[in-house]
Amino acid sequence: MVYQATASAPVNIACIKYWGKRDTKLILPTNSSLSVTLSQDHLRSTTTSRADPSFSKDRLWLNGKEEEIVAPGRLATCIAELKKMRKELVEDKDASAPKLSTFPVHIASYNNFPTAAGLASSASGFAALVSSLAALYALPCSPSTLSLIARQGSGSACRSLFGGYVAWEQGVLDDGSDSLAVEVAPRSHWPEMHALICVVSDDKKGTSSTSGMQRTVQTSELLQHRIKHVVPKRMKEIEAAIKAKDFDAFAKVTMADSNQFHAVALDTEPPIFYMNDVSRSIIALIVEYNRVAIEKTGKRKAAYTYDAGPNAVIYTLQENVKEIVELIVKYFPQKDGFKDPFQLFAGEGGVGEGRVVEGFNEAVAKKFEVGAVKGLIHTNVGDGPRVLDAEEALLGPDGLPKSLA
Amino acid sequence: MVYQATASAPVNIACIKYWGKRDTKLILPTNSSLSVTLSQDHLRSTTTSRADPSFSKDRLWLNGKEEEIVAPGRLATCIAELKKMRKELVEDKDASAPKLSTFPVHIASYNNFPTAAGLASSASGFAALVSSLAALYALPCSPSTLSLIARQGSGSACRSLFGGYVAWEQGVLDDGSDSLAVEVAPRSHWPEMHALICVVSDDKKGTSSTSGMQRTVQTSELLQHRIKHVVPKRMKEIEAAIKAKDFDAFAKVTMADSNQFHAVALDTEPPIFYMNDVSRSIIALIVEYNRVAIEKTGKRKAAYTYDAGPNAVIYTLQENVKEIVELIVKYFPQKDGFKDPFQLFAGEGGVGEGRVVEGFNEAVAKKFEVGAVKGLIHTNVGDGPRVLDAEEALLGPDGLPKSLA
Repeated sequence: MVYQATASAPVNIACIKYWGKRDTKLILPTNSSLSVTLSQDHLRSTTTSRADPSFSKDRLWLNGKEEEIVAPGRLATCIAELKKMRKELVEDKDASAPKLSTFPVHIASYNNFPTAAGLASSASGFAALVSSLAALYALPCSPSTLSLIARQGSGSACRSLFGGYVAWEQGVLDDGSDSLAVEVAPRSHWPEMHALICVVSDDKKGTSSTSGMQRTVQTSELLQHRIKHVVPKRMKEIEAAIKAKDFDAFAKVTMADSNQFHAVALDTEPPIFYMNDVSRSIIALIVEYNRVAIEKTGKRKAAYTYDAGPNAVIYTLQENVKEIVELIVKYFPQKDGFKDPFQLFAGEGGVGEGRVVEGFNEAVAKKFEVGAVKGLIHTNVGDGPRVLDAEEALLGPDGLPKSLA
Repeated sequence: MVYQATASAPVNIACIKYWGKRDTKLILPTNSSLSVTLSQDHLRSTTTSRADPSFSKDRLWLNGKEEEIVAPGRLATCIAELKKMRKELVEDKDASAPKLSTFPVHIASYNNFPTAAGLASSASGFAALVSSLAALYALPCSPSTLSLIARQGSGSACRSLFGGYVAWEQGVLDDGSDSLAVEVAPRSHWPEMHALICVVSDDKKGTSSTSGMQRTVQTSELLQHRIKHVVPKRMKEIEAAIKAKDFDAFAKVTMADSNQFHAVALDTEPPIFYMNDVSRSIIALIVEYNRVAIEKTGKRKAAYTYDAGPNAVIYTLQENVKEIVELIVKYFPQKDGFKDPFQLFAGEGGVGEGRVVEGFNEAVAKKFEVGAVKGLIHTNVGDGPRVLDAEEALLGPDGLPKSLA
């Protein structure tokens, strides 16, 4: 008997940003946050976990490379918590259940997007890890309960336990048991939400989000105001916008919160910068694109958001993606052709040189050299973690990653 | 009899930033601010004012080009206020005083620094205008009283009425009569304060500070916290630092407030960016330079500050300027030689290729192309407005600017 399960989990990109911990061990945040889960058809982490009494110890391979599992590190904590749940929720209640909690595990994880893309893989990675172990252990747990474990691996990972539109409620308890992810709306509620990720070239080493956010907590005078007075209001506003499928309101709050996250990073000593001149220019393009849209219809059509790096994620409704790809390509010529997963340009033989919409003031940004935006990834709102068939397993019969075989 | 006076006034660079008006007509700020006045030996505005009953109307030339004086604009307001003071404080009290308040004036003003340098000339310009008219009208007024007028031309101009270290107290009265500049310490108290201005090339049109600050007032959630809770504390801290000549404390507050000003600009809708990648790299260099200094002596040796543009102003004590010039030149090679007004490199035939101090981590920034920093201006703390001799006048015998003759 082989005890093994494989799961995949999605990336999520926050609209209301998580920045600051009130407990660094349990990873309890200083404010609630909210994200959109992106489709696993395009970006995902996949993880296979196997429990076997013949294994000598817990081992993990990330993209084929073994990573040490150091207690009491984040990885060790997640695995230990899930083993404990296996024992308490399954084995202690059913004497016939195999004692998987006592077996060492081998875990192989793989991200289908390059690390160089600068997309945070820790959220999808920990969500896939937790999902595969939960499947292996047959845990009778809701995604919210699993999110409590994923959160201890990487805070934002808890939001990748759901598809659609997801809130991470900060919670108030010291033990973190109420700091978990909940579904605000499923993907099916508002499936028209698309995202265009602009992968921005950067020659600077950024500040890691783990160390950066704690420097902000310690030194920013503005962060406390954000936490207490701004985020609670914005959480309500964006939840209402999602429920009403009001893209204009969604976009307004999303952009304001991206700006404010980077503002408190800048208010840190020494200041933290994640956006560069390319990021700034993409903002200028989206601001102008929205200005034209507001003039015509009274409503915004796109929302930029930036995490702890220079990459832009542009949220927009499906009907506008083509215009926005053309806009970005005009200012940021692409070396490689645009991968067109939704076949926007199928009838036109590709995206071409790009163009701006009527009434757009082209002087708001300059045209950059090829490579300033290294790539464009078009995706959309997606579902939550998936348990995959055995044929998708990343571990071979010998319990070692297939890619190493 | 020719009624004419010429005055010059200095540039000032704020350490605690002015950003936001509570009254846009009277130019009353939402918070107090504090600046260092820079030497007129290097940067200055010079203005000649002449009153003559034969003139047909008030006229003004800026750098030789006539500018229209439109009532109730800022220029017209300043001139009208000064004429009113002439009448009330001089002519109404002394019947023999010539009725200059009834004569039209011709005003010629000249900045000795190029507009392209991106240095705000409105502060020194309005301070020189007010100083020359005050001299022409023989107004028995303190610099603080004149600062009330200059403030209505351009807010930060009020701080250029004093040399040394100058606070602009925001005031509480609706008529603005308590919103004025006061001397915190004269230049002679701490003459070792030097400044290095890095003129940064930028291909973007910035947002004007007048419109930008009001957008921040209207849309930034963080500005109110800054105004109410942060600035009052920092004003006390920096005044104490100046009085104690504590450069480390001065630098800490100055950098934090520059960061916070740019943070609230970024928290604006749409966001306002004044710093670019070059600005960010200069910050990284100063942060690293200070890290080395703190490791050696426990104290910071330099403070960056940025106004509404990409230029850096680096405050440091005289003894450190040479090191900092060498640091900047190493990362930002200069096309034109460094003008060396204090003869730092007199014995070495110029600044050379630059270098970093021992222990400096050179990887904190990349070396830029020639021209990224277009120029370096070395100056120091200076005195307040000066009334100049007749031979310095900018108006010719015909009452028109000499440069046009």
